[in-house]
Amino acid sequence: MTNYKIILQIAGVLLIVEAFFLMLCVPVALYYKEPSFIYLTSASIITGLFGLLLWFITRKRTTKNVTKREGYIVVSVSWIIFSIFGALPFFLSGEIPSYTDAFFETISGFTTTGATILTDIEAMPKGLMFWRCMTQWLGGMGIIVLSLAILPILGIGGMQLFNAEVPGPTPDKLHPRIKETAKRLWGIYVLFTALQTILLLSGNMSLYDAVCHAFTTMATGGYSTKQASIAHFDSAYIQYIFIIFMFLAGTNFSLSYFALHGKFKQINSNEEFKFYLTIIAAFSAVIAVVLFITEYSNPGLSLRQSLFQVVSILTTTGYATVDYLLWPPLLILLIFLLMFIGGSAGSTGGGIKVIRILLLLKNSMLEFKRLIHPNAIIPVRLNKSGVPQEVITNVLAFVMIYLFITGAGMIFITALGYDIATSAGAVAATLGNIGPGIGKVGPTYDFAHFPAVGKWFLSFLMLVGRLELFTILILFNPSFWKK
Amino acid sequence: MTNYKIILQIAGVLLIVEAFFLMLCVPVALYYKEPSFIYLTSASIITGLFGLLLWFITRKRTTKNVTKREGYIVVSVSWIIFSIFGALPFFLSGEIPSYTDAFFETISGFTTTGATILTDIEAMPKGLMFWRCMTQWLGGMGIIVLSLAILPILGIGGMQLFNAEVPGPTPDKLHPRIKETAKRLWGIYVLFTALQTILLLSGNMSLYDAVCHAFTTMATGGYSTKQASIAHFDSAYIQYIFIIFMFLAGTNFSLSYFALHGKFKQINSNEEFKFYLTIIAAFSAVIAVVLFITEYSNPGLSLRQSLFQVVSILTTTGYATVDYLLWPPLLILLIFLLMFIGGSAGSTGGGIKVIRILLLLKNSMLEFKRLIHPNAIIPVRLNKSGVPQEVITNVLAFVMIYLFITGAGMIFITALGYDIATSAGAVAATLGNIGPGIGKVGPTYDFAHFPAVGKWFLSFLMLVGRLELFTILILFNPSFWKK
Repeated sequence: MTNYKIILQIAGVLLIVEAFFLMLCVPVALYYKEPSFIYLTSASIITGLFGLLLWFITRKRTTKNVTKREGYIVVSVSWIIFSIFGALPFFLSGEIPSYTDAFFETISGFTTTGATILTDIEAMPKGLMFWRCMTQWLGGMGIIVLSLAILPILGIGGMQLFNAEVPGPTPDKLHPRIKETAKRLWGIYVLFTALQTILLLSGNMSLYDAVCHAFTTMATGGYSTKQASIAHFDSAYIQYIFIIFMFLAGTNFSLSYFALHGKFKQINSNEEFKFYLTIIAAFSAVIAVVLFITEYSNPGLSLRQSLFQVVSILTTTGYATVDYLLWPPLLILLIFLLMFIGGSAGSTGGGIKVIRILLLLKNSMLEFKRLIHPNAIIPVRLNKSGVPQEVITNVLAFVMIYLFITGAGMIFITALGYDIATSAGAVAATLGNIGPGIGKVGPTYDFAHFPAVGKWFLSFLMLVGRLELFTILILFNPSFWKK
Repeated sequence: MTNYKIILQIAGVLLIVEAFFLMLCVPVALYYKEPSFIYLTSASIITGLFGLLLWFITRKRTTKNVTKREGYIVVSVSWIIFSIFGALPFFLSGEIPSYTDAFFETISGFTTTGATILTDIEAMPKGLMFWRCMTQWLGGMGIIVLSLAILPILGIGGMQLFNAEVPGPTPDKLHPRIKETAKRLWGIYVLFTALQTILLLSGNMSLYDAVCHAFTTMATGGYSTKQASIAHFDSAYIQYIFIIFMFLAGTNFSLSYFALHGKFKQINSNEEFKFYLTIIAAFSAVIAVVLFITEYSNPGLSLRQSLFQVVSILTTTGYATVDYLLWPPLLILLIFLLMFIGGSAGSTGGGIKVIRILLLLKNSMLEFKRLIHPNAIIPVRLNKSGVPQEVITNVLAFVMIYLFITGAGMIFITALGYDIATSAGAVAATLGNIGPGIGKVGPTYDFAHFPAVGKWFLSFLMLVGRLELFTILILFNPSFWKK
């Protein structure tokens, strides 16, 4: 019953789009007189031809509608196929000699994770590094349309009710208002990217670095053109620009849309946004005070280092201006706990998401009321309306599955011989699409030391986390394939 | 509106009971010709007099019924008051010079945790150590009646539906069938204790050691009379006796009741019990294989060490025959994850409990079915009947609060300057009523090194964990005190 033709056709179209973006990196390589332009061009041609082929063999299709089941498959397949072809420039050029590594680096890009196997980024050709940052930017675009338009229709996340910009659930049809929603929010995404680029340029960053970093900030990706990440740019101005744009990228893009249209009421009444602000304020304040006492004795520096790391980890960007593993255990723990919160719903941030944590906290607090008044029906309320019980159950199932995967993932990584901290860090950082973790995947480390099986496993976790668990895991459920 | 008189009266009666059991330890001290008999006697007299006083001033009470609200207070108060007076022999004798330490050791006993501040157990007077083990045995008795009779009536745990032995929820009345249930299950508890004592004696253990260990096994407490815990008894026979009785103590006592009455159908159809067996089998098998390969090269020893540690941690007993922190990280992780499962409902085991994990797993798996069939209502089924949605919500709230407390507790402990592993271990081991954890509270360490504020905090966690979170935490909820 599944219409594989339409799945292949959509994949074909997406590959043609990818070929186009690959081609956009060629001028960068040419400008810097790098031979990498050859590999970018060939990758683009291979990708484009394959896309055309897929499109050609599936051009006579029978139906215009995509069912929910096909929707799940399309979403999963597109991220994988993008990564398979997106890895070509790295692999063909020999700059990343192992295809496993090239695939890891690319899916880490498209999922906006930012975990890297590169050990000397500045030694890599600029054309390839431009493509590396662009994978994140494209991944971010994908996530916006996915989380605000496609997933709610597929019934995933239980958050469709809280995204004002989203069409109501239309069972078994994917088309309707996706295009419109996507256009609006992509407009904001492009606008913010441009704005950040300009602001970084005025901080004396080079155009190349500014564009690359704007790409990876708005995607909450965290790839940098510098081995030392943002610590390389030792300027309070530049670091605050990053803090502001990471913050925006971790905010629901619908809210930015409202803000730009002067509708501040929607922002004021948004409880997820308020909770997002509260988390940032609370964690930054504690960390800044402890840093001031134990490390820097400089209030401005303490606040900046604290804010940067908190916003970077919470939004799942993963830039660093300092190695937080050198901080006191209390602060490392706070950073680690932030990894299990994540960005806002409808942002490019990954992780569990602020709204889910908020709903959980509210539901837990209400349980006491329910014990005291056992006969009353007391629903969780959000933004002044009651949340249906199914949504709460879905959110709770999400978090439980998230934690089960974390536990299982840690078992897998320790079985490869790693210590517990590294395994916790690697799983939290990939499943949460963050990038750096703790242990031997901390901010000054990379993922190169994992054996191939570990890299494929962590690639899988990035995908599972990015697609809100259910999209991928449902494909492993036998009843999905029944009919 | 709260009837404090009846609360004080119940406390008074309980103190008289405690005085009686304190007196039972005097002969032990006398037999070993220890001066500790003086302190046990004085503690017994002080406790008894205080109990009589409470009983005397509250003897004219107006009502026979205990309301739910009073029930919560009674349960919390009795554990605290038991510990306050139970600490007296340690403190009065000067053997534990700090009252904080004496209280920690005693509440660790009554909550059947087994976390200790003692650094040389064999140097302590035997009379006092007998009392120490007895606190666990009494705590275990309390837990049986609490978890199978009182808490379900208070609406806590959402597990009233799955304990066949339990009277239906009778709002606002605590009395009805508690006595009957308690008697039956205490009968089994005493029987098992006697049986284990005999079996340990026939393994050439001394009567004193056999009784003490039977006390702390049936309570899943884990206090030992030996500094080296069960590793001291280097005998496969003795260690397997412990494994069997820890296993029984971690099983729902209703099931043992059924088994002794030949009703095996109830056991066969009990999904929690099957899952409990599965967890033990799976974890033991993996750990035994890895131990065989990496440590012992002896299949029998590998299996025994694995089974012992798995059953000890899962049932939250906390005995050790080996320092598992010396094992490979994979195995340490598996042990640590076991700390978050716990014993069966209706056993003396603590932690989250097997049934809650089972319900969570089932609910998470069903979420996929719910996504595929969004219009169908698909309830979680257990033991062939549907579980009401309120029970699932309660279980999920329980686990979330458990994890939130774990996170908050770790923040507290790291703020005292401890490393993350120790903080995780200390919180998991106290909140889960286990005893040993990881890091500097591993099997070869103790809790003496914590500052007083840490000891009081961890004592609080033991109580919160033992009373299924809600019983204690509800007292901090403003709406509890409103009316």
